[in-house]
Amino acid sequence: MIKQYERFVHCLALSILMSTSLFANNSNRITEPPPNIIIIYMDDLGYADLSIMGHPTINTPNIDKLANEGQLWTNFYTASSVCSPSRGALLTGRYPIRIGLAGEKKRVFFPESKGGLPESEVTIAEMLKENGYETGMVGKWHLGHLPEFLPTSQGFDSYYGIPYSNDMNGVKWGLETFFNEPDINMWKVPLMENKKVIEMPANQFTITQRYTEKAIDFIHSNKSKPFFLYLAHSMVHTPLFASKEFQNTSKRGLFGDVMNEVDWSVGRIIETLKELNLEQNTLVIFTSDNGPWLTMLEHSGSAGLLKDGKGTTWEGGMRVPGIFYMPGTIKQGRVTDMGSTLDLLPTIASLTSSKLPENKTLDGFDLSGVLRSKSPSPRNHFFYYRKKDIYAARLNAYKAHFITETCYRKDNQKSILEQPLLFQLENDPGEHYDHAIDHPEIVQGIKDLVSNHIETIEIRESELDKY
Amino acid sequence: MIKQYERFVHCLALSILMSTSLFANNSNRITEPPPNIIIIYMDDLGYADLSIMGHPTINTPNIDKLANEGQLWTNFYTASSVCSPSRGALLTGRYPIRIGLAGEKKRVFFPESKGGLPESEVTIAEMLKENGYETGMVGKWHLGHLPEFLPTSQGFDSYYGIPYSNDMNGVKWGLETFFNEPDINMWKVPLMENKKVIEMPANQFTITQRYTEKAIDFIHSNKSKPFFLYLAHSMVHTPLFASKEFQNTSKRGLFGDVMNEVDWSVGRIIETLKELNLEQNTLVIFTSDNGPWLTMLEHSGSAGLLKDGKGTTWEGGMRVPGIFYMPGTIKQGRVTDMGSTLDLLPTIASLTSSKLPENKTLDGFDLSGVLRSKSPSPRNHFFYYRKKDIYAARLNAYKAHFITETCYRKDNQKSILEQPLLFQLENDPGEHYDHAIDHPEIVQGIKDLVSNHIETIEIRESELDKY
Repeated sequence: MIKQYERFVHCLALSILMSTSLFANNSNRITEPPPNIIIIYMDDLGYADLSIMGHPTINTPNIDKLANEGQLWTNFYTASSVCSPSRGALLTGRYPIRIGLAGEKKRVFFPESKGGLPESEVTIAEMLKENGYETGMVGKWHLGHLPEFLPTSQGFDSYYGIPYSNDMNGVKWGLETFFNEPDINMWKVPLMENKKVIEMPANQFTITQRYTEKAIDFIHSNKSKPFFLYLAHSMVHTPLFASKEFQNTSKRGLFGDVMNEVDWSVGRIIETLKELNLEQNTLVIFTSDNGPWLTMLEHSGSAGLLKDGKGTTWEGGMRVPGIFYMPGTIKQGRVTDMGSTLDLLPTIASLTSSKLPENKTLDGFDLSGVLRSKSPSPRNHFFYYRKKDIYAARLNAYKAHFITETCYRKDNQKSILEQPLLFQLENDPGEHYDHAIDHPEIVQGIKDLVSNHIETIEIRESELDKY
Repeated sequence: MIKQYERFVHCLALSILMSTSLFANNSNRITEPPPNIIIIYMDDLGYADLSIMGHPTINTPNIDKLANEGQLWTNFYTASSVCSPSRGALLTGRYPIRIGLAGEKKRVFFPESKGGLPESEVTIAEMLKENGYETGMVGKWHLGHLPEFLPTSQGFDSYYGIPYSNDMNGVKWGLETFFNEPDINMWKVPLMENKKVIEMPANQFTITQRYTEKAIDFIHSNKSKPFFLYLAHSMVHTPLFASKEFQNTSKRGLFGDVMNEVDWSVGRIIETLKELNLEQNTLVIFTSDNGPWLTMLEHSGSAGLLKDGKGTTWEGGMRVPGIFYMPGTIKQGRVTDMGSTLDLLPTIASLTSSKLPENKTLDGFDLSGVLRSKSPSPRNHFFYYRKKDIYAARLNAYKAHFITETCYRKDNQKSILEQPLLFQLENDPGEHYDHAIDHPEIVQGIKDLVSNHIETIEIRESELDKY
C-alpha cells in the first residue's frame, strides 16, 4: 500500500504541475513547421465497434491501420458519458464541471437551450490559433447553437456541420422512428456553414460524405500552413444514415454500413495527407465522445467486454478507443496505460509548442512522451463524473464506485452506495469482482484523491440548464 | 425467405457431398512437398483473450502477427463447449455425438474414466500418417488415458504431455485452491512420454516452456519430411501456472503472465520455422477448445461481447478465435464467414491431398478455398450440442436456441423453450434481441435443418460414462 500511496502523491504533484505551468516545453515541438493536428471524433462509438477491437462483423481496415501503425490506447477515457460535456472537455482539457457543462437537470444541450460553452473557456482551436494555426471544424458541434456559442466564436476559422445531435428536433420521438426506413424529414436538424443555416433538415444520407469533402477541402486549402482540423462525425449516433454507396455493404446491418462509410472517410483523409506529403507532419487522433447507446438495440454499438454503455459511469460508458497516428514520430504499439480526451489539449500544446491557457486549472496531462517513446503515462487517475457528482474514480488499476446508475434502461436506478464497490480494472475490465472488503486502504486512498480534487472545483452556473 | 431456403438446400447438398467424397481434390495440394501442419490449441481461451481481439491488458504480439498476416476468423466455432468432446471433434471432423463423446452423465473424461476416443475413429494424425507424414503430439490429450486410447494409439508417432486436465486428481477441490499461491502438489497430474508417466505431479510451472522445447525438437527432427504437430497447451485452464521468467510480467495478473508465456511459445515456433526455412511451407492454425471458464472469476478469460462462456451453448461458450497462417499461400485478411474446428480435417486433407477417412460421416467443410482466395465459406450452418442434445443451431446469420442452460453458475437452470429464441448474430453477436416472433419461417427452417441432421446420427455408446 505504500507504493500505492506514493503513486497517489506523485499523481497529485503532477496535477499541480500541469495546472500551474503556463507554457509547454518548447523543446517538445516535434517538427518544423509544427505539426498539423486532426481530431476525428466519433459519436456513440463503443469500445468494441472496430475490427481491431474484436468486433466480429464490423470491418474498419483504415482505422485499424492507424491503430496498427500508430498507438492504440486501450485505457482511454472520455470525460463524460454523454455528448455536450464530453465535447467541451475534449476541447478545453477540463472536466465538464469546470466549464459550465454539468447541469442539475439536463445533461446535454437541446434545440431550446440558451447556453453554450462559455466564451471565457479556451479551446484547442483558440490555443492553436494564437500559435498561428489555421483552424477548421467540420461536423457535430453540440456546445451551444446560438451565434455566440458556435465554433467560429470558439477559435475556429470555419465551420460546416450540425449544431446539435442528429436525433433532435424530431417530428416524433420513439424507438420505432429510429428503426424505420431512414427518413431525413423525421428530424429537423439544421446544417450550418459558419453561422448560417444552409439546409433544413440536413440530408443525413450524404452527411458523412459531405463532411469528408469539406475536411479534404480544408486540408488542401491549408497545405502550406500549420492547421488544426476537428472532424466530429454525426455518426454512429442514431438515427443511422449511410449514403447510397454504402447501404447494404456490411454484415452488421445499417450500423456496419455507417461504419464502412466512416472508415472510408478516414481512409480518404489519410490518402489526402499522403498526396500532399503531409502524412509525416500531421498528428491524427481518432476517438469517440462516449460509449454505445444501448437503448438503441441493434442500432447501438458495443462496448465489448466492458460493462454498460453511454450515459453511465461504468467502463462501457466512458472508455473508448483512442488512436494516435503520425508515422515517423509516434512509437508504434499498444498502450495499456491510462489516457483521456482531457489530455489532448496539453499534449497538443506540448507537441506544437503552444501556450497553455492562462489561469485555468487543467485536468489533462501531457502524453507526448508516451506518444514519442512509449514512456509510462503521466495519468494515473481519472474521475467519472455524472452531472455534478463524482460517481466513481480510478487510481492506477483500481476503480471505486460511490454512486451507480444505469441510464437509458428500464432498470434505471440511482444508488448511493454505503460501501463503495472496488474493481481492479486491469484484471477485471468488465467490473465483475468487487474487492472493497479486501482493500479498504485502496478505497480510502481513492476517497482522499476525490476530496483533494473536489477542493479544486469552483461552483459555476450550468449552461445546460439555461432555457 | 426464398433466398434463405435456397441457401439451406445448398448447405444440405454440400453436407452430403462432403460426407460421401472419399478423396480430397488432388489439385488442391498447395505445395510440393505437401505442407507441414501445426495446430496450436489453447485450453479455455475466450474470444477476447488476445490483444487483437480487443483485450485491454493482455498483450499477444506474436499471435496477433499470425492474425494480421494470415487470416483471423471471427465466426469460428469449436464443436463443444467443454474439453474432451471438443478435442475429439477437432481431430476427427465429426460432432462428438458421432464419436462416443456425448455422455448422459459426464461431459469430459476424468481420472477414473475407462473410455476414450474409439480406435475406429480416424484422426487427422492417422489420415496424414497414411499420406507419409511424421506426426507428433505435445500437450493435453484428454481423449482417454488408458494405454489403448493415448495419442500413440491414435496416429501420433510420439507424445509428450498430460493425459487429462491440469485441475484433475486434485488433493482437494474448491475455488480457493485455484486462487491460492500456485502449488503443483495440489493436483496429481501425470506428465507422460508416449505411454509412460515420467513425472508426477507434473511441474506445471515449467510445462509451457517444456511443451515448447518438445515442439521445437519435433520440428527440427522432421525438417526434411512433411510433419503434423498437434500442440495442445494445458493453459489457460485453471489452475494457472507461469514459469519464473514470465511471472509478474503482465498487468492482467497471472492470467496475463500465462498468456505472455503462450505468446512467447507461439513466437518461438514461428522463429523455428523461419530458421529452418519452413515458414512458407507450414500451415499454422491457432484456436481454442472452448470459451472462458467464467466460474474462475479473475482467473478466467473473457468472451468479450459474446454471451456467457465455457460449458454453455451461448456464443461465448463455443465461438473462439480462429487463426490461419501460412505466408505466400493464405490470402491475408479477416474472415467473418462461419468456420469450425470440425472443418480442420477436411481442409487439411484438401491442402495435403490426403485421403479422407472412409465410411465416416464428416461434419466438416473444406475451407481451403477461403484460405487461399477468401472465397465464401462453404459452411453456412452449425449445431450447438450439449451432451446428446442440440441446444441451438445456426443457419447463415440466424441462431435458434431450443434449450438454454447456464453452466457453472449459481443460476444454473436448464430450460426447454416452448418458443425458441432467435438471434441475428451478425447484427447481434451478444444474443440480446430475440426475433423469433418476427421470423417464424426462419425458426422453422432451422428446425428442419436440425431434423435432417438428426436423421444422420446413429446411436452410440458414450465413452464418457464408462467407469
